[in-house]
Amino acid sequence: MPSYVAPIRDTKFVLEQVLQLDRYSNLGGFQNASPDVIEAVLTEGGRFVAEVLFPLNHVGDREGCTWHPDGSVTTPSGFKDAYRQFVEAGWPTLSMPEAFGGQGVPHVLSTAFEEYLISANMAFAMYNGLALGAVSAILAKGSQEQKEKYLPRMISGEWGGTMNLTEPHCGTDLGLIRTSAVPNSDGSYAITGTKIFISAGEQDLTDNIIHLVLAKVPGSPEGSKGISLFIVPKFLVNEDGSLGDRNGVTCGSIEEKMGIHGNATCVMNYDGATGWLVGEENKGLAAMFIMMNAARLAVGLQGLSLGEVALQNAVIYAGERRQGRALTGPAEPQEKADPLFVHPDVRRMLMEGKALTEGLRALCLWGALQVDLAHNAATEEERQAADDLISLLTPVIKGYGTDKGYDIATNAQQIFGGHGYIVETGVEQYVRDARISMIYEGANGVQAMDLVGRKLPMNGGRAIQLLFKIIAEEVAEAKKQERLSALADALERANGQLQAATMWLMQNAMQNPNNAGAAAYSYMHLMGIVSVGLMWLRMASAAIRMLDAGKGDAKYLEAKLVTARFFAERIMPDAGALRRKIEGGAEAVMALDPEMFAVA
Amino acid sequence: MPSYVAPIRDTKFVLEQVLQLDRYSNLGGFQNASPDVIEAVLTEGGRFVAEVLFPLNHVGDREGCTWHPDGSVTTPSGFKDAYRQFVEAGWPTLSMPEAFGGQGVPHVLSTAFEEYLISANMAFAMYNGLALGAVSAILAKGSQEQKEKYLPRMISGEWGGTMNLTEPHCGTDLGLIRTSAVPNSDGSYAITGTKIFISAGEQDLTDNIIHLVLAKVPGSPEGSKGISLFIVPKFLVNEDGSLGDRNGVTCGSIEEKMGIHGNATCVMNYDGATGWLVGEENKGLAAMFIMMNAARLAVGLQGLSLGEVALQNAVIYAGERRQGRALTGPAEPQEKADPLFVHPDVRRMLMEGKALTEGLRALCLWGALQVDLAHNAATEEERQAADDLISLLTPVIKGYGTDKGYDIATNAQQIFGGHGYIVETGVEQYVRDARISMIYEGANGVQAMDLVGRKLPMNGGRAIQLLFKIIAEEVAEAKKQERLSALADALERANGQLQAATMWLMQNAMQNPNNAGAAAYSYMHLMGIVSVGLMWLRMASAAIRMLDAGKGDAKYLEAKLVTARFFAERIMPDAGALRRKIEGGAEAVMALDPEMFAVA
Repeated sequence: MPSYVAPIRDTKFVLEQVLQLDRYSNLGGFQNASPDVIEAVLTEGGRFVAEVLFPLNHVGDREGCTWHPDGSVTTPSGFKDAYRQFVEAGWPTLSMPEAFGGQGVPHVLSTAFEEYLISANMAFAMYNGLALGAVSAILAKGSQEQKEKYLPRMISGEWGGTMNLTEPHCGTDLGLIRTSAVPNSDGSYAITGTKIFISAGEQDLTDNIIHLVLAKVPGSPEGSKGISLFIVPKFLVNEDGSLGDRNGVTCGSIEEKMGIHGNATCVMNYDGATGWLVGEENKGLAAMFIMMNAARLAVGLQGLSLGEVALQNAVIYAGERRQGRALTGPAEPQEKADPLFVHPDVRRMLMEGKALTEGLRALCLWGALQVDLAHNAATEEERQAADDLISLLTPVIKGYGTDKGYDIATNAQQIFGGHGYIVETGVEQYVRDARISMIYEGANGVQAMDLVGRKLPMNGGRAIQLLFKIIAEEVAEAKKQERLSALADALERANGQLQAATMWLMQNAMQNPNNAGAAAYSYMHLMGIVSVGLMWLRMASAAIRMLDAGKGDAKYLEAKLVTARFFAERIMPDAGALRRKIEGGAEAVMALDPEMFAVA
Repeated sequence: MPSYVAPIRDTKFVLEQVLQLDRYSNLGGFQNASPDVIEAVLTEGGRFVAEVLFPLNHVGDREGCTWHPDGSVTTPSGFKDAYRQFVEAGWPTLSMPEAFGGQGVPHVLSTAFEEYLISANMAFAMYNGLALGAVSAILAKGSQEQKEKYLPRMISGEWGGTMNLTEPHCGTDLGLIRTSAVPNSDGSYAITGTKIFISAGEQDLTDNIIHLVLAKVPGSPEGSKGISLFIVPKFLVNEDGSLGDRNGVTCGSIEEKMGIHGNATCVMNYDGATGWLVGEENKGLAAMFIMMNAARLAVGLQGLSLGEVALQNAVIYAGERRQGRALTGPAEPQEKADPLFVHPDVRRMLMEGKALTEGLRALCLWGALQVDLAHNAATEEERQAADDLISLLTPVIKGYGTDKGYDIATNAQQIFGGHGYIVETGVEQYVRDARISMIYEGANGVQAMDLVGRKLPMNGGRAIQLLFKIIAEEVAEAKKQERLSALADALERANGQLQAATMWLMQNAMQNPNNAGAAAYSYMHLMGIVSVGLMWLRMASAAIRMLDAGKGDAKYLEAKLVTARFFAERIMPDAGALRRKIEGGAEAVMALDPEMFAVA
């Protein structure tokens, strides 16, 4: 059976040495991230998820959720009790505003905890994750009355929450939705329609579920400009906060899926359910994007989390399983065979996993810090810069992060050989679970288009220019240090490929937007390599600083330097290939008619 | 629900126009591959697998196999009846020798059929596939008596067959096996031990199962030099060919797996079972390698087959599902949205699938032709050349082919969006099924080591030199044609990277074998790109020849030229990155101790 240990040492290295959170201690929100609090959250959080949630991960996969003809859904054995403990310990409230019962720690710290939470049990984590997505939309767009009515118990975890976007005929293209919201005389709306793929749409963990639902008010404009957002509670909430009548929303069925079996993916039927408008009519998509941006960062984190837990198990297996001999001669001649660990191709996979998980951890935490700084930095300029950077890199964290998470999990499974294909071993679940992260919250191809079509040209390219400036400055600084110069050179080369690709896009996307579309995926990966490369430069720099100061665990810090070199030698070379693919343009991509794809 | 149509037009293009099988009609074996026979095998075979086996593919996945406490195994509903039809129609006998009831068609034609068979139902195909692997070992190393006793009914499909290598503690490292074979007084042996991961080890399709089992005779040398191969029938076979006593071999359990649920993966317990030596004592591994080489080509084919069926379904979905608008303006303004097909990133995935499946089809069929020519070509020199080429490229076809098959299936699933994650849609099964092909018959990392460590230096590098010579000649010839010159240039560049990487290996692997080990995987992929690139040059050349002659379907042939260009622009650029990774050497890959991978 698999195991999991929260990688606290590495998280602290990123928070304290790379991001240097202590620099921000005078900013709003950061006072709740003192070293003591960080230590407590990581240690207690890591312990909780490893002891309480991780043992339920495999159970959840095997049992799945059960739908009953009355529309109720039972979660896997043990989930209900674990959820109660999760709520009692206050884990859902970490980064939530104190005004509504939250603990108000910065997003960067709650993100560190969420990584552990997802590694331990992604299906479980999603129940709370969806609720917090709904909270973010109500926080941003809800009325004061709505906030007071719903947020305290959603934030505490007593109530669940969901995001209802997809319908059978439309997912990405939300302009096509048909669910209707007909105004009632009392200011509420009657919501009718069918939503599908609603994660956590029904469950037995919470007393109430607050559904956020996209619907169209009759007579509103066609397409995405005519979409409104509604709060539709499973149970109506009385003035005194007690639960009232059951609302007209039921779970019609749950899906059989490739993975995340422990999370119920529901068909939700709205049959004149009572809903309340969030914000203004026909401005629903903007509110939904607030949820989606937060959710996309959380999904990017899923890539890291599943890569991490899969890799941890591959490392253990590579040390225990004996097969063959080292190419340089028996490493342990007293045994009949050497551990898998001696084989260079096994090591290659482990090193890829290490370079990518540690790189993605730094990138995800850096991204979460930008979210904090976009709200709390001292100057408008700094807030703007943080907002620009996280807007630009959200699709990269989501798209590149989840693609790599799947690759890491697939490689981890590979190290197990035939045993990795067996359910009992536990590692194949990570591959199946990781697969969904590439699809939902905007498929990764949609992320790539968001990056190239919206984020790149945003404000005249201000964000990408800022990124280039940061990289140029840090590369120039690093080149002065002998121990960083090779890495700095490699990052400079990769960034040069990104700059050339960006230039190519500027010159070629206007004349034919398909050039942007055909380039987008490679461009997203190219930016992923460069941004993770920047994180490796920062991590290597911090490691050298600590080594020189005689601080920290020398072996751990030396491993950082080796892994940074591995990233430069073994992952960065893809940057050149990606640029060449981009510069291939759209012609060959788009030349064939549909019938030319037909078999006969 | 998914669909499947055998890609007969493309197969015929490869057989007739690219491989030009008619050139070989005067050679032994090829007289059974007249155009009429090819037409009949492809048409009837394609119809049979699509109508009879494909409808059982999803059923097989959902039901799986059932193990009973008496050791028997029930295959999924419909498998038994379909297998009966499969045998009655003579499909198992295609390329088998006429002396033992086979039809004696060349391997290249039976491989074309096997592609369809696996696409339609991989789990089903494996029952017969394993039997034919066992047949190949008996054909090569069995006594005349053994051949006459077992082969006719194994070839007809009346009896099954298996390969028993793996034990709980050893898979790749067969030197570690513990199963013992104690000589009996009558010349037979008593086989005792446990074998795991035995595909098709028990089933309800055939009257008997002929297990081929690796075991150690007491007192034989340590390691792989002390392994012998034995025939262990489930039911002993009497002199008159009738079935006798049940042998001491039982299926102890079957595995729950990520995929190929329709094929029983068995734990086989040998308890003093009666076995007969195949060939000589302690020469079992050589006999097993005969089976494995054939099996590795068949597994490489699984990559193509699953890629093909997944891609076919993605093409259909991309044409039917409407979401969003073309970047260049609405393609079908009368509809509320355009089909997915208009989106460049969807098209990129479809084109990658098309370029890789068609390229792998050409490579697999070319490889099968080399197997035929290695036996039947007119001169010793030609037979040697064919044998050299297929020896070199067997690990590439297996390793690169199955890695790409998984990628294609994953991309096909991606095109389905959320629907691709749902079991009912059917496409996620292809991803799960494709995953095993990267693992069994030698994990792809083992293939890479076979390529770099054995096949490359074999006979002083004779095979790779031959490959380089062929490519140089065909590139030089192609450059003379304007319509082929860009593709020829691209192949020349990619081949230049392969040559440089080969040179690097020659210079650096001797001093440190870990340099070979750390390079192996990238080298295998680099050779995959170059060899599929050579196939695309040949396909493009054939398409131009036909277009100029006014033969064939012009749209189909023009699509070949576009797809060749796509391969050059979008897949070949990886060659340079792979070379750079190889040249990174082993240092960063191997520098970290096991404890430096530990979480804390």
